[in-house]
Amino acid sequence: MFSKFLPKEFSFFDLFDRQVDCAVSAAAHFKNTVTTGAIDDSALQKMRDIEHQGDEVAHIIIDQLNKTFITPFDREDIHALAKELDDVTDMLNTIMNRLVIYKLTRSNKNLVEFSTMIEDSVRAVSCTVKGLRNMKHSKAVNDSCVEINRLENVGDSARDRVLAELFETEKDPIAVIKWKEVYQDAETVLDICEDIAHVVGSIIMKQA
Amino acid sequence: MFSKFLPKEFSFFDLFDRQVDCAVSAAAHFKNTVTTGAIDDSALQKMRDIEHQGDEVAHIIIDQLNKTFITPFDREDIHALAKELDDVTDMLNTIMNRLVIYKLTRSNKNLVEFSTMIEDSVRAVSCTVKGLRNMKHSKAVNDSCVEINRLENVGDSARDRVLAELFETEKDPIAVIKWKEVYQDAETVLDICEDIAHVVGSIIMKQA
Amino acid sequence: MFSKFLPKEFSFFDLFDRQVDCAVSAAAHFKNTVTTGAIDDSALQKMRDIEHQGDEVAHIIIDQLNKTFITPFDREDIHALAKELDDVTDMLNTIMNRLVIYKLTRSNKNLVEFSTMIEDSVRAVSCTVKGLRNMKHSKAVNDSCVEINRLENVGDSARDRVLAELFETEKDPIAVIKWKEVYQDAETVLDICEDIAHVVGSIIMKQA
Repeated sequence: MFSKFLPKEFSFFDLFDRQVDCAVSAAAHFKNTVTTGAIDDSALQKMRDIEHQGDEVAHIIIDQLNKTFITPFDREDIHALAKELDDVTDMLNTIMNRLVIYKLTRSNKNLVEFSTMIEDSVRAVSCTVKGLRNMKHSKAVNDSCVEINRLENVGDSARDRVLAELFETEKDPIAVIKWKEVYQDAETVLDICEDIAHVVGSIIMKQA
Repeated sequence: MFSKFLPKEFSFFDLFDRQVDCAVSAAAHFKNTVTTGAIDDSALQKMRDIEHQGDEVAHIIIDQLNKTFITPFDREDIHALAKELDDVTDMLNTIMNRLVIYKLTRSNKNLVEFSTMIEDSVRAVSCTVKGLRNMKHSKAVNDSCVEINRLENVGDSARDRVLAELFETEKDPIAVIKWKEVYQDAETVLDICEDIAHVVGSIIMKQA
Repeated sequence: MFSKFLPKEFSFFDLFDRQVDCAVSAAAHFKNTVTTGAIDDSALQKMRDIEHQGDEVAHIIIDQLNKTFITPFDREDIHALAKELDDVTDMLNTIMNRLVIYKLTRSNKNLVEFSTMIEDSVRAVSCTVKGLRNMKHSKAVNDSCVEINRLENVGDSARDRVLAELFETEKDPIAVIKWKEVYQDAETVLDICEDIAHVVGSIIMKQA
């Protein structure tokens, strides 16, 4: 209703599409980088560029929110969604940055496993966020939310197994410090995706 | 006023009672487990069950909030209270999980000390949350808030003393990594309780 | 309108001035302490006193917010600003506390570098917060926000460089654990300052 009176660039739906596309790009780039083991300054620079684009869209969303009286869904949900989508890209950038800073630049099967779960979860997040345009067709959105929750649980178990193994087998305490932080951060990305699924669920329920 | 038009299960007060009962169960189970030194998979499973129940109640509260127009106190306070009560149970589950994953399964006097403070604080939280039903009798609520703040200060000092001792006496860096995280998490539970006391204080002040 | 019926100390602007003055005192004391290498119990006590004052002002702001119907800017922005100013002082207190607990009491050039960035950023925060009184003269506020963002970026790079150097040169894992936490906390102060700049930006935009 309101969206047709707005220039295209001011539609919250378009802005969220752009923001979630950044998160998907970040997740795909992360998976590709850790899978190929090409974790270097150039891969990090590409991630920073994606993160920077996502950050800009987040700021545009908040600015539009501050200037706009009528919004397609509750203001606090727009705010939460923009912040948490930003957190996804931000955390992937943080992890890639740590890998370079800590010189953890060889491929690692546990990290590849996390990167696959993260990409799957962020793609499901994209489906839920893009589904907000047309809440009547919410079956696909609902299925994606279920998948995001499932991946969060799988991620929890993976982190537990991987940390137990790290403490069991890695005798260099410095390596323990580094990898523990990276694995916990990786699992945090899945937690943020779950939070996004909750926000989307709230938005849909309020419209029902 | 509004509550009499709602079926019993939809009353926010009843839901918060159930949620805070989960937090109390989690704190009692945590104290019992670390005191007896029976930190094993079965104790962890029991904690996960409690955490799962608490999580379900939290979701019911948020769902009801999204569907309900008139609420017994401010929407953002209901949201904050549900989230922070969930955080208490969640953090206790996280700590118990770490103890098992990190194989820190023997009783430890510092952890017993924290678990006692945590149980006392969560019981005081229960008193404040249950006091919201009848805000005119707020002396008991007020006394509990004072006690929660006191325990948070005592917890801060305990963490400082325990960490200083850990760095002084523990020569195995891997053990330092593990215990440092557990002690800091334990103190965080007391911080969350203090945040809950602030939310309850805000709710009462707005009604005054 | 409302403010003329309130004693001077109840004006939100006055309260924020007092709160940001505490943050500036904390940042100046932190810089002075780590620069002179006089990191001892007496310096920590002074920091705790500042933190305690800031905490009290934060509580007065929240109490006033709960009692006041008409506010000079959006309630959620008042809440966010009070919380984040409190977080600045709190985090400086936490860092100083860790330095004493961890016995990191000798001067350290990296920490001196962070403390200088932090003081500069907190002074810029003070300028933006004090500028809220008179939003028409917002050029100085805007310049300060730009400076806060710049310092956050410089702080990110400094943390990356300092952590890389720590992992490269420090062979004692216990020392790595301690310093890593302190450097990451120091960078967090700059992140919080950036968040404050965003809140101030939102407040100004809504009034425009």
